[in-house]
Amino acid sequence: MVANARVDLSSDYLEGAHPEVLQHLVCTNEEQTSGYGTDAHCERAQELIRRACDCPEADVTFLMGGTQTNAFIIDAFLAPYQGVIAADTGHIATHEAGAIEFGGHKVLTVPAHAGKLNAEQVEACANGWEQDGTREHTVMPGMVYLSQPTEYGTLYSLAELEAIAKACDAHGLKLYVDGARLAYGLACSTNDVGLADLARLTDAFYIGGTKCGALFGEAVVIPQGGAIPHLVAQKKQHGALLAKGRLLGVQFESLFEGGDEGVLYRRIGENALRAADALREGLVARGRQLHVPSPTNQVFPIADESELAPLAERLGYSLWERLGDGRAVIRLATGWATCSADVEAALEALA
Amino acid sequence: MVANARVDLSSDYLEGAHPEVLQHLVCTNEEQTSGYGTDAHCERAQELIRRACDCPEADVTFLMGGTQTNAFIIDAFLAPYQGVIAADTGHIATHEAGAIEFGGHKVLTVPAHAGKLNAEQVEACANGWEQDGTREHTVMPGMVYLSQPTEYGTLYSLAELEAIAKACDAHGLKLYVDGARLAYGLACSTNDVGLADLARLTDAFYIGGTKCGALFGEAVVIPQGGAIPHLVAQKKQHGALLAKGRLLGVQFESLFEGGDEGVLYRRIGENALRAADALREGLVARGRQLHVPSPTNQVFPIADESELAPLAERLGYSLWERLGDGRAVIRLATGWATCSADVEAALEALA
Amino acid sequence: MVANARVDLSSDYLEGAHPEVLQHLVCTNEEQTSGYGTDAHCERAQELIRRACDCPEADVTFLMGGTQTNAFIIDAFLAPYQGVIAADTGHIATHEAGAIEFGGHKVLTVPAHAGKLNAEQVEACANGWEQDGTREHTVMPGMVYLSQPTEYGTLYSLAELEAIAKACDAHGLKLYVDGARLAYGLACSTNDVGLADLARLTDAFYIGGTKCGALFGEAVVIPQGGAIPHLVAQKKQHGALLAKGRLLGVQFESLFEGGDEGVLYRRIGENALRAADALREGLVARGRQLHVPSPTNQVFPIADESELAPLAERLGYSLWERLGDGRAVIRLATGWATCSADVEAALEALA
Amino acid sequence: MVANARVDLSSDYLEGAHPEVLQHLVCTNEEQTSGYGTDAHCERAQELIRRACDCPEADVTFLMGGTQTNAFIIDAFLAPYQGVIAADTGHIATHEAGAIEFGGHKVLTVPAHAGKLNAEQVEACANGWEQDGTREHTVMPGMVYLSQPTEYGTLYSLAELEAIAKACDAHGLKLYVDGARLAYGLACSTNDVGLADLARLTDAFYIGGTKCGALFGEAVVIPQGGAIPHLVAQKKQHGALLAKGRLLGVQFESLFEGGDEGVLYRRIGENALRAADALREGLVARGRQLHVPSPTNQVFPIADESELAPLAERLGYSLWERLGDGRAVIRLATGWATCSADVEAALEALA
Repeated sequence: MVANARVDLSSDYLEGAHPEVLQHLVCTNEEQTSGYGTDAHCERAQELIRRACDCPEADVTFLMGGTQTNAFIIDAFLAPYQGVIAADTGHIATHEAGAIEFGGHKVLTVPAHAGKLNAEQVEACANGWEQDGTREHTVMPGMVYLSQPTEYGTLYSLAELEAIAKACDAHGLKLYVDGARLAYGLACSTNDVGLADLARLTDAFYIGGTKCGALFGEAVVIPQGGAIPHLVAQKKQHGALLAKGRLLGVQFESLFEGGDEGVLYRRIGENALRAADALREGLVARGRQLHVPSPTNQVFPIADESELAPLAERLGYSLWERLGDGRAVIRLATGWATCSADVEAALEALA
Repeated sequence: MVANARVDLSSDYLEGAHPEVLQHLVCTNEEQTSGYGTDAHCERAQELIRRACDCPEADVTFLMGGTQTNAFIIDAFLAPYQGVIAADTGHIATHEAGAIEFGGHKVLTVPAHAGKLNAEQVEACANGWEQDGTREHTVMPGMVYLSQPTEYGTLYSLAELEAIAKACDAHGLKLYVDGARLAYGLACSTNDVGLADLARLTDAFYIGGTKCGALFGEAVVIPQGGAIPHLVAQKKQHGALLAKGRLLGVQFESLFEGGDEGVLYRRIGENALRAADALREGLVARGRQLHVPSPTNQVFPIADESELAPLAERLGYSLWERLGDGRAVIRLATGWATCSADVEAALEALA
Repeated sequence: MVANARVDLSSDYLEGAHPEVLQHLVCTNEEQTSGYGTDAHCERAQELIRRACDCPEADVTFLMGGTQTNAFIIDAFLAPYQGVIAADTGHIATHEAGAIEFGGHKVLTVPAHAGKLNAEQVEACANGWEQDGTREHTVMPGMVYLSQPTEYGTLYSLAELEAIAKACDAHGLKLYVDGARLAYGLACSTNDVGLADLARLTDAFYIGGTKCGALFGEAVVIPQGGAIPHLVAQKKQHGALLAKGRLLGVQFESLFEGGDEGVLYRRIGENALRAADALREGLVARGRQLHVPSPTNQVFPIADESELAPLAERLGYSLWERLGDGRAVIRLATGWATCSADVEAALEALA
Repeated sequence: MVANARVDLSSDYLEGAHPEVLQHLVCTNEEQTSGYGTDAHCERAQELIRRACDCPEADVTFLMGGTQTNAFIIDAFLAPYQGVIAADTGHIATHEAGAIEFGGHKVLTVPAHAGKLNAEQVEACANGWEQDGTREHTVMPGMVYLSQPTEYGTLYSLAELEAIAKACDAHGLKLYVDGARLAYGLACSTNDVGLADLARLTDAFYIGGTKCGALFGEAVVIPQGGAIPHLVAQKKQHGALLAKGRLLGVQFESLFEGGDEGVLYRRIGENALRAADALREGLVARGRQLHVPSPTNQVFPIADESELAPLAERLGYSLWERLGDGRAVIRLATGWATCSADVEAALEALA
């Protein structure tokens, strides 16, 4: 983050790419490669991700952004008459402008608890459909969608995820995990869900690039290779096939190539978590209340509404929710570019 | 193009971005900007493009690739029950994997002549529908789609385009021009259709970035500002809204910012055309027959089928069409990265 | 209803058509007419309905069933990126198997009160969208859907409907009323919403035939004629255009043609309401609790779960909802065919 | 057909239902049955049709009209990214107002010969896709659609149909036959394709009711029972599930119940063919040229354009095609209601 009188933590996609990612794009720029993801960089990145997930059979495919990925995967896995179960705070339920319905699928929402749904809700939803005498007049649940970390920065524990996966198995539901901010979950000290767990428990998940160090791009892991037939054609039909597919390969190659300092995707997560932890500690030390106990890169301090305007001059934040009692929740997000000076400045602004 | 024993002219998107575009991405990488195309780079690029089109009222919006752009614009302009008229060789009719039908629209094809349709065909199609007693049982034409240059590298003259636009006006059809390779049309010595003409005659057209010097991205010009309501929401619904929208703004800023050497988008076109013209001349001089008299960056020499395999070892080409008489058409494409040595090598390989 | 040891009130579409409707189909059977609703019977029925609605400018069009009608009207009025506000108990939210999403639209649910939504909820939903800084990432509300009577047999008062219509006007929302059981609302003694009110307040509503005396068919009233362009083509595209369209014209002609005994559609409603009122009175007199205070043709007695199986041998009912405390709600529906003996038998079975 | 100064043969759905069908609707009108096709009449009709097709394993399901049936079956069998091969004169390619594209599928047309496609065209289309290096950018063929009889009244021979089925098998394509006028094919003296052949060779076909004696309705036969999962839900989602499903069951029960005079569906076909044959003979005897050698219930005489207006006063016909040389093709259709007097009157009008 460049020196700036005003520090901006309003989101985790304010900058371009992590310098190492960008450098790799520059170095490979004049290479001539075939298009649409058939090049050596994509192959290498796919291989690196398969290894990181301990899942040699997986298909790995790259898309351009989160909403596109969600709409594509949901369409590819569901029958046209099926819907997808999600927490009512889930991204597909709230902030995708109808992209899931554009593909013909209903989002079947259940009330979220700190951004999460649970196995009991999945069970209840599936049982409700199965035992409904008029079920052929209703939308059949075909998939569970969840975000790790969630839109509230919270994390599913391995036990929670295993319970959900078990419920899915019991009812023939696919399990799909939106990992837009996965780096910031993986790096969290309380996290016990690794990439290999996701590969073991889900039908598909994606490793977010856009919010975690790439210019753009998400890597979808489909543990059971071949589960989506005609993957390229389906991406093309969705307008989701990048001509210079190698751009995505090059970026994920960079994010998952090991180096002297370790895998970049992990380092990016660690930097953001260090900053977020310092921010949380500092806020609590200063008596600032936090709305959700998020352990990842998003921090949700509560502010008086009267603080909002002056604060905005010193600190970029997202207005998350008005609490209706004169207080509001704001959201601060750290990332690969957040340094300790940024945290200091933010704390000062919020003091 | 890096020195290479084997020269590759199989397409015009083999490399990354033109160095100046890439350089601008690098220089702006650490800037913090708001997302989804609301940043200063997008605004600047929009302003530059409006000026280049002599159309201050235009909306300019950026998308990620050609098929995505076509599907989005066609969906945005057509009523759900309308179809789009296209040459049967048009990209939307052949190589978009059903993306137009995914949005619910039929492609109403007419036979192409050297990749082009003409005003008479548009008239006939519109009249046919209007005079059909059962027309409410058929798909109503709502738009004409054409590519400039076409998939065969040919160009519409201004007179041809004006006649088509007139036919569209007479029948209430929208006119949309796919400019995936527009730079290579604008730079052509025989071209008489400028950006301002496109802005004057069409309801929308796009200025291709992916094949003309950008890493990725297309700039859609909608001359009548406001013609597509809720543009951002519609892009989001299509999975076509880039989180770090500024990446597209930065690239088109670079392509359309004037400099000492002139506007980059023009220089890119000129380089490719110089190479293509030299290639054509050399081929003809060597007695090689050309399949389509394309004046732009795509060249279509005819080869004996027996030549194909050995040729592939020395020259990257696209196999375009087998003629069924022992001969085949191959396609060679030049671009911003093609230098005279590449042309020499290609000519030698084809000698 | 034919004499039957076991009386069946499980729904209001158990029989074929009211005898007068059927008779009219028989009498007109050998007439030769043009297809697709262009015949004299459709014209006559349209004229009769326009008069009944006191709305000479209205378009009246016939469809085959309720879900088809809802999906068609919602698609025809909404832009592709808009959603429809409905009570969470509304038919489109629960029992249409994803037909609305098949057309690409999200159902934006609000909590129902006795089957109804209210103007405040509409206001809140519209304001929420308008004031949301990220609204272009969410689904824009474009219409309010409500049922009159509701799925719970309750009725909107004229004051309630006017308040909702006012909220719709204030926010540019269309108002659409599902009148699958409209006859049973119109005939209700407490009802103050007439056909002319619906025509004055809504953008579209339908007069249900399937559940109100026809073999099948619904008559959609679009008060502002021409509001849906290319109505026939859009119906055809939805698979909703009946070849022998006159079948729908003939039936609605019969339902709305005045006679010595008055308009059949009113008589059908009155018969059902007489029976439902007698049923309610009898149940209350016998100490049976009613779940929802429905004043129309649907009655919702509460029964112990232990009663359900033996009851089913004497009375056909719908199991509506298990209350979770050993009790269940059942639904009884009266119609044109329900006679006082049926009511007696039902009361005896439930004694 | 009622006595009428002007005879009308403009289509085969001018009247209501065959009297025996109507009588059965009248007789069963007051029966109380469960909804959505779960009643005894549907079961009986399904059983009768299974027997007529010699296919005890088949699923039989009823829909309301031809376009609805085509759109439903194509959607149910195809993957979202697949298209359907059809003759360019096929109903789905010309007269369904985009219903197939509404479901997201492209119609891949091949040139018709007298309304038919052939096995070679299917082979070429499938091979073309399989051998196309860019096939993942094109629409994958997934089904062959054909009409028996065709839109031009012609018939596929058993040999032709077997060759097409073989080509489908070889390439994994589904085969679907539109039998809107199937009765008029089955009754044709030159026909050698029976219901059991269709059941043996296709993945689905429908037995048309609307144009063959029913008020409305088509019976889809899916020889491999269970091939369409959640059939009821999928119909509901398409707005194609009739509440009083028994109306369709009652009608097809009537059409396929044997009696002293034989199966009604056959008698209806025979009556129409007798009339059509007499019409053809009479026209030829009078020196009138026929455009297509149709052996079924549609007859296509050629007339001078100057004849059209006066003819219309004496004979209802469809204007089929203007030949551009001052002549036009008209279409006359016979049906269950056409009597010899109608034929005489038509011949006189055309003399």
